[in-house]
Amino acid sequence: MRIPLERKVLNENDRIAAGLRERFQARGVFCLNLISSPGSGKTSLLERTLEGFDKSRKVAVLTGDIQTDNDARRLARFGFPVRQITTGGACHLDASMVERALTDIADDYQILFLENVGNLVCPTSYDLGEDARAVVLSVTEGEDKPLKYPATFHHADLMVLNKIDLLPYVPFQMELARENARRVQPEIEIVDVSCTTGEGLGRWRAWLEAQL
Amino acid sequence: MRIPLERKVLNENDRIAAGLRERFQARGVFCLNLISSPGSGKTSLLERTLEGFDKSRKVAVLTGDIQTDNDARRLARFGFPVRQITTGGACHLDASMVERALTDIADDYQILFLENVGNLVCPTSYDLGEDARAVVLSVTEGEDKPLKYPATFHHADLMVLNKIDLLPYVPFQMELARENARRVQPEIEIVDVSCTTGEGLGRWRAWLEAQL
Repeated sequence: MRIPLERKVLNENDRIAAGLRERFQARGVFCLNLISSPGSGKTSLLERTLEGFDKSRKVAVLTGDIQTDNDARRLARFGFPVRQITTGGACHLDASMVERALTDIADDYQILFLENVGNLVCPTSYDLGEDARAVVLSVTEGEDKPLKYPATFHHADLMVLNKIDLLPYVPFQMELARENARRVQPEIEIVDVSCTTGEGLGRWRAWLEAQL
Repeated sequence: MRIPLERKVLNENDRIAAGLRERFQARGVFCLNLISSPGSGKTSLLERTLEGFDKSRKVAVLTGDIQTDNDARRLARFGFPVRQITTGGACHLDASMVERALTDIADDYQILFLENVGNLVCPTSYDLGEDARAVVLSVTEGEDKPLKYPATFHHADLMVLNKIDLLPYVPFQMELARENARRVQPEIEIVDVSCTTGEGLGRWRAWLEAQL
């Protein structure tokens, strides 16, 4: 009984997402949907990214969470428009949440980051009108995650391997993680970063600029 | 439109879960539902737990994942009955999956571990007939997680703070994590462990034995 309704909800989501995508394309906006487990470092990656941007850059961020506006507060201090989407229980962002949150932001951003709810499963099914998806995997989580959550990695354009400063202390095999990601998505691009030490953030920024 | 159907699905789940709980209570089984983010260490905790059990203990494990039977293979080597539940996309275990998986296991276990799908959100809503819930939080994930995923921590009896061997390398504040957990669940018990070094596993085992 569940499937028909889920399909209806997803069709409605796709309709709104298509509208968002059209708006973004008409204005030359690059929109990135960031997906990961809780605590993989999406917010830290955005902090380091915003920190590195010239204040004249036209950047906006929507950040999703079940509860709390912790992430919006962490991100707002860089001076760019940031809005918290508190889903109140929902395990993912959907296109209508994004549409609503954007009404409150001046329409001149050129880069839009959508930080999804921390969840490696459910966000995958919801198109938000984005141009690209990045999945963040931290080296403390284990290199089997692309195989265990294949849909999320299959639909990602980029895998950010985060927390590489912790590699000396965990049994994580970088090459195996990359192989696993490429097994489910052979075209995936991969950058290794540490949001703590800053290592690799240049490659992440280069990837981002190349998308604009 | 979504709520009535979700309620119907949950009612059906509750009915099956109540049946499981009755079966477990009639036989004096202790059933523990383990919930966490992907990569927090549920499987590692179970490995160390099974490893420490006398072979005569009557223990069984059901381990849930979207894809792969990696976890079942990791856990099967200790000689206790272990079954993988591959949900094929579903973001949580439900009571009917547990019921089906149990048909294949001899009915003499006294401890049943249910390792849920790695997800801090969705598993919370699904009663599996368990006696207790444990949420595993690793110190690499950030101490704000109980506030950001309050339902999961609110319904937990125990929080296992895992990977404490990594504390020297991450900015995690143990006392703040404990405070946050107690804000959403004042009665929660907390044990700090490292499945890598074995530190704290005695307290975890003591908690477990006290439930039997």
